[in-house]
Amino acid sequence: MRVIGLPEIRDAATRPLVFDSVRAALIAHSEGRTTSPPPIHLAFPDAEGDCHVKAGHLAGSPHFTVKTASGFYRNEARGLASNNGVVLVLDATTGIPTAVLADEGWLTAWRTAAAGALITHALTPPEIREVAVIGTGLQAQLQISWLHTLRPLTRVQVWGRRPEAAERLAAALRGQDINAGVEQVITAPCVIAATAATSPPVRDLSSAIHITGIGTDMPGKNELPPELFKAASIIATDDHDQCLDHGDFGNAVRSGHAGESADTPIGTILRDGMARTGLTIADLTGIGAADAALASAVLMALTPVLD
Amino acid sequence: MRVIGLPEIRDAATRPLVFDSVRAALIAHSEGRTTSPPPIHLAFPDAEGDCHVKAGHLAGSPHFTVKTASGFYRNEARGLASNNGVVLVLDATTGIPTAVLADEGWLTAWRTAAAGALITHALTPPEIREVAVIGTGLQAQLQISWLHTLRPLTRVQVWGRRPEAAERLAAALRGQDINAGVEQVITAPCVIAATAATSPPVRDLSSAIHITGIGTDMPGKNELPPELFKAASIIATDDHDQCLDHGDFGNAVRSGHAGESADTPIGTILRDGMARTGLTIADLTGIGAADAALASAVLMALTPVLD
Repeated sequence: MRVIGLPEIRDAATRPLVFDSVRAALIAHSEGRTTSPPPIHLAFPDAEGDCHVKAGHLAGSPHFTVKTASGFYRNEARGLASNNGVVLVLDATTGIPTAVLADEGWLTAWRTAAAGALITHALTPPEIREVAVIGTGLQAQLQISWLHTLRPLTRVQVWGRRPEAAERLAAALRGQDINAGVEQVITAPCVIAATAATSPPVRDLSSAIHITGIGTDMPGKNELPPELFKAASIIATDDHDQCLDHGDFGNAVRSGHAGESADTPIGTILRDGMARTGLTIADLTGIGAADAALASAVLMALTPVLD
Repeated sequence: MRVIGLPEIRDAATRPLVFDSVRAALIAHSEGRTTSPPPIHLAFPDAEGDCHVKAGHLAGSPHFTVKTASGFYRNEARGLASNNGVVLVLDATTGIPTAVLADEGWLTAWRTAAAGALITHALTPPEIREVAVIGTGLQAQLQISWLHTLRPLTRVQVWGRRPEAAERLAAALRGQDINAGVEQVITAPCVIAATAATSPPVRDLSSAIHITGIGTDMPGKNELPPELFKAASIIATDDHDQCLDHGDFGNAVRSGHAGESADTPIGTILRDGMARTGLTIADLTGIGAADAALASAVLMALTPVLD
C-alpha cells in the first residue's frame, strides 16, 4: 500500500483535473450512478473535536474511497492545524487497499471549491463579474479563487463578522490579482456563503440573483435566510437527502419556505444547462462520490502508465 | 504518519494483549464509556464484494480508529485473499492521523476470536472441556484455538456442511495439539457457531448448556435456531442495538422467542461474573470500541517509551 503525501498530491491535483473529476461525480450522482452511504460522525466534546467518515464510489471507477476528516478546534492554540484527514483508496474489483492519500484535508477543500465554483458559474449569467462572499475562512477564499478560474471577476465584496478577518481575506485575494475589498452591505448580484454559521449572518441579500451556500455540512447549521428559498426559481442541491437533512434547503423546507421536492440535482444542471430567471440558489453539503472521483484521478495521475 | 505492516502487528498483538484490550473494551462498552456509531456499508454486487467501515473510541483512550474491512469473494479464484482491511489510528486529542495498521483483516479476526472465547469461557462451567464448533472457516478455528488458551480442551467436535472442510479444520486443530474430530451429531455441552449462514445449519443443539454465536454480522444472517432463545436463562450480547438489528438475538425477538430487553451486556458478565443455570446464549456482532482498544494497544506496544 502506497502512502502519498501532500506535495505529490498538490502536483497531481491540478485545477482542470479537480474540476473534471468533481463535475463527472456530480453528474454521475444526479444519474444515480454513485454509491454514497450515510457518513459516520464521531464527537469528542472534551477535546472540542469531531470526525466525519465518508465513503463513496462512482459506478465503473476502478477505485472507491473511505475519507476520514477531523476538526479539532484547540489545535490552533497548540500551533497545529485544526483540520486533518486522510483518504484511503481501495480497488473496486478486489477490495484491496491501494493507497493512502495523506492530504491533510486539502482534497476535500479543493473538491468543495470546485463543486461550488462549477454551480455558481453555471447559474450566474455570463456577463456578471461582481460577486460577494460571506465568510472569511479558507473555503471562502477558495470559492472565489476557483470561480475566478472559470470566470475572471472584476470585483469581490468580502463580508465578515470580524472586520480584521474580512480585511485579511480581501488582502489575500488582492495578492492573487483579484480586485477585492471589505463591504458592510452586499450589493453584488452573485453571492457565495461559506461560513460555519448556525443562524444567517446576513439577512439582506436583496441584490442577489444567484446564491451558493456551501457551509451547512451538519445538522444545526444555517447560513442562508430560509425565506429566500420562497422566491427561488431554481433550488439546486448536490444531494437531495443530505441537503434535506442538514442543508439550508432542509432549513427552508422545515420552515415552510420550500417544498420537499422543489430541488434539482446540481449534476443535471451541469450536464444539461438550465434556463434561469429570478433568483437561483445552490445548496451544497458535499458528496462522497466527489471524494472518490478526485482521489481516483489523483492516484491515476501519479501512477506511471506501463505500456 | 506511520504505516505498520502485518509482521510487526503480529509481533505486538500477543494473545494476552488482545484478550486484555478486548475485555476492557467490552466492559467499557457495557458501561456506556465507548463511542461506536453505526457503521458504513458499501456493496459491489458486480464484483461480489462488500466493504464495512467501523469507527470507535474508548473514553480516555489516546486514540480512536476508523477500520475499513472488505470482502471480495472472487479474489480466491485470482489467488488473492478475499478479506482485506486497514485500521486508521488517530489521536483523540488532536484528530491527527497517527498510523495506518495494514493488518489485512487480522486484527478483526483476533478481536472476534478473543471476544467469543472470553464470553464462552465466562458462561461455561469450568469443568466442561468438550466443545463443538459449527463452521469450518478461519473464525471457527480461531474460536477454538483462543478458547483453548483460556481453558485447555479435551475434545472438539467439528460440524461442517462440507465434510472435506470439516476434516480440514479438525486436522488443523490436531496440528495445534487439540483433540478434534468431525461429528455429524453434536453432543457437546458447549457449542460455538461461526458461520455465514442465513438459516440455522444445525437444528438439534439439545446437548448444549452454553452456545456462543459470532457469525451474524449483517441483516439476513441467522445461525442459531430462534426458538432456542426461549429456553435461555441468560442472553448475552456485545451490543444491544446491533444484536437486535442483525444478530441472532434480533431474529429471536422478531420471531417472538425473546423479549426486546431480555439481554445482558457481555461486558457486565465479564466484569461481575454471573451465576448460571439451564441454557445460556451469547450473541456477538462485533463492536468498534474493541477495534479501537486493540489498535491502540498494538500501537503503544510498538512505540518506544521515551523516558
